[in-house]
Amino acid sequence: MIMKNVRLFMLNLPEVSKLLAGRLKSAFMLIVFVLTCLEIQAQLRSAVVSPEILPDNKVVFRLYAPEATNVSVNGEWMQMGEISELARNDTGLWSVTIGPLKPEFYGYSLYVNGVQVLDPANSQIKRDGTRNASVLLVPGKESELYAVNDVPHGTVSKVWYDSPTLGLNRRMYVYTPPGYETSTQSYPVFYLLHGGGGDEDAWTTLGRANYILDNLIAQGKARPMIVVMTNGNPGQTAAPGHRPPMSAQQGAAGGMGNMMFEESLVKDVIPYIESQYRVLTGKANRAVSGLSMGGLQTMNLTFNYPGTFDYIGVMSMGMTDMSNMGIQTDPNRDQKIEALKNAGYKLYWIACGVDDFLYESVITLRNKLDEHDFNYVYRESTGGHTWPNWRIYLSEFAPQLFK
Amino acid sequence: MIMKNVRLFMLNLPEVSKLLAGRLKSAFMLIVFVLTCLEIQAQLRSAVVSPEILPDNKVVFRLYAPEATNVSVNGEWMQMGEISELARNDTGLWSVTIGPLKPEFYGYSLYVNGVQVLDPANSQIKRDGTRNASVLLVPGKESELYAVNDVPHGTVSKVWYDSPTLGLNRRMYVYTPPGYETSTQSYPVFYLLHGGGGDEDAWTTLGRANYILDNLIAQGKARPMIVVMTNGNPGQTAAPGHRPPMSAQQGAAGGMGNMMFEESLVKDVIPYIESQYRVLTGKANRAVSGLSMGGLQTMNLTFNYPGTFDYIGVMSMGMTDMSNMGIQTDPNRDQKIEALKNAGYKLYWIACGVDDFLYESVITLRNKLDEHDFNYVYRESTGGHTWPNWRIYLSEFAPQLFK
Repeated sequence: MIMKNVRLFMLNLPEVSKLLAGRLKSAFMLIVFVLTCLEIQAQLRSAVVSPEILPDNKVVFRLYAPEATNVSVNGEWMQMGEISELARNDTGLWSVTIGPLKPEFYGYSLYVNGVQVLDPANSQIKRDGTRNASVLLVPGKESELYAVNDVPHGTVSKVWYDSPTLGLNRRMYVYTPPGYETSTQSYPVFYLLHGGGGDEDAWTTLGRANYILDNLIAQGKARPMIVVMTNGNPGQTAAPGHRPPMSAQQGAAGGMGNMMFEESLVKDVIPYIESQYRVLTGKANRAVSGLSMGGLQTMNLTFNYPGTFDYIGVMSMGMTDMSNMGIQTDPNRDQKIEALKNAGYKLYWIACGVDDFLYESVITLRNKLDEHDFNYVYRESTGGHTWPNWRIYLSEFAPQLFK
Repeated sequence: MIMKNVRLFMLNLPEVSKLLAGRLKSAFMLIVFVLTCLEIQAQLRSAVVSPEILPDNKVVFRLYAPEATNVSVNGEWMQMGEISELARNDTGLWSVTIGPLKPEFYGYSLYVNGVQVLDPANSQIKRDGTRNASVLLVPGKESELYAVNDVPHGTVSKVWYDSPTLGLNRRMYVYTPPGYETSTQSYPVFYLLHGGGGDEDAWTTLGRANYILDNLIAQGKARPMIVVMTNGNPGQTAAPGHRPPMSAQQGAAGGMGNMMFEESLVKDVIPYIESQYRVLTGKANRAVSGLSMGGLQTMNLTFNYPGTFDYIGVMSMGMTDMSNMGIQTDPNRDQKIEALKNAGYKLYWIACGVDDFLYESVITLRNKLDEHDFNYVYRESTGGHTWPNWRIYLSEFAPQLFK
């Protein structure tokens, strides 16, 4: 009984056809039948449009769920604990209109009798570590910077490289700017690091880094550059679904704070990129930035390897006591800050939102740098520890690079 | 009330932290708190393991849904209309053990009170056109050919190119084999086409073409080659979520059967690939294959552009009257078959499953080719119009290329 309605949505065509093949002898009739089924399927699916963005940026969510007794929606435009209940009509279609929403790239989920689910009418999904969410891009001025615009697009490549430091063959994403393939020019390189729970996919899927760069380059705001997005978890080869069977080495390298990832970036990733791609070398042509865990790694990389990067961006991360996590504060931190100061750099950029749970740690970082008369630029934004902020930070940091 | 249980699973950390920031004055305490929350979240998520593959290849599906009254699972290992009901325990955890399953890469969905949903405990998803499904790879001999093995991996690049024929800037996926970046060698090119409803992502996500090639090349079964996976819908720039705002041209090129995609492949894609990549040219170094709609396009491409490809693979598609879809049978088809015969080719490979709804059309195709004493190899498999078959066909066709 319960399955009756949903069955319409999941006609398994090959199987239907197999069952009917004996009866519909003519291949022509069979094809007409199958195409009719496909059309019906498509119409049924398209009958439920969700989400629908109205001209005033109000948004309608819909779910066909005649057997459900409670349906609600939760999205990144909401405060914690907030939900919007959908209302059922007499056909079993649930809907709610919310907003208007500010132009932004939002994740959201539906709840069906308490179970968090993706919106089945929406094919677009973003994965954040092990969690998926349906996505909604409300167009407008604020989201224009990461929209897929009608501008030249760079190439995003999924590249496997050997990391002797970690004992793994690993995957990274490499963005090459529009024109890379046809030019003979060499490009500067920006190493862009994700946060805890993320992987090499995060900056393109959640951060839309490739489209941000496309747009900045098209507007003449950023120099064409190569952007390298690694997997910052030293025990991982690649994102879920793209990992070879666990080998003896895997997992041995542990998590953040043991400096293994940082060492592998300097010893394995940079040499790989500089030998495989047409790039400019030396610190004047290298930038590094990361958010949260990637911000910690950015500090580690730049304090421990002074003279490697001229452009440094720490997003949503500062200095704090992490001894409870087994991460000891470097006893030589003061000397290392001096070493970076002496080695020289062109930009040390720190960005944080006033609502970020790490806001206090950023004050500690700034105080520590001030003690050393260490030159940095501080950018304080509204909001917290979120991708909307990191997308904005990227769009502000990238234009300052290699100039 | 209903939301109470699921709330535990969706603690919004930045927001929690914001609320508590006023109370927990010390950044240290705050970080400890947040990390504790992260740990709890991770434990709660990992508490529900689904799917769990048991040593005998039985599979356990689980869903935590205390408020649901009916939960079932449907997957590609089942016959049409079949479901397995999950049973609820007294904590609200639903589960069922099924199988043992044959090693294969399966899609599946859960049903919660009649609503088709992805498995929230499983981060791995495959998108087929506008539909998503959770995925399950049961390891074993049969699925070994497309597993991510510990072998050298090629690079998969998302490349944008101009198609003057279609008036669009479009996206395609290009697989370059392991060693491409470091060698000075030139490679042959295999153009691999998806079916109706698919796009440029289909052959890597559903077909796992890159891992199949990696494995075949590592075993010495296939020559290192470049594989080009285009978007076969002439009105589309790219997959959903990667399309610029609809331009005047878009959609004008319509669907299959109007030969626009085929023309664009020959006039736009091949010249682009041959100018941008280190490739061998001429028909001896070009292969083309496609499934279903892509099989029709393969026939169109090879009958209309004889002398372009030496290796031709038609999967799950034959010749049939499609006039009801507005696709007229080419009145010059006989002459074109003769033209291809005269131009010469090395392999014309046709593959179809006995349960395929297009099986009859493949008989028609073979009869037509037989009329012309046209040389081809016919591979008949079990099964129907499905990705398990297309993955196998790719693994059998690729080793025959460029030898």
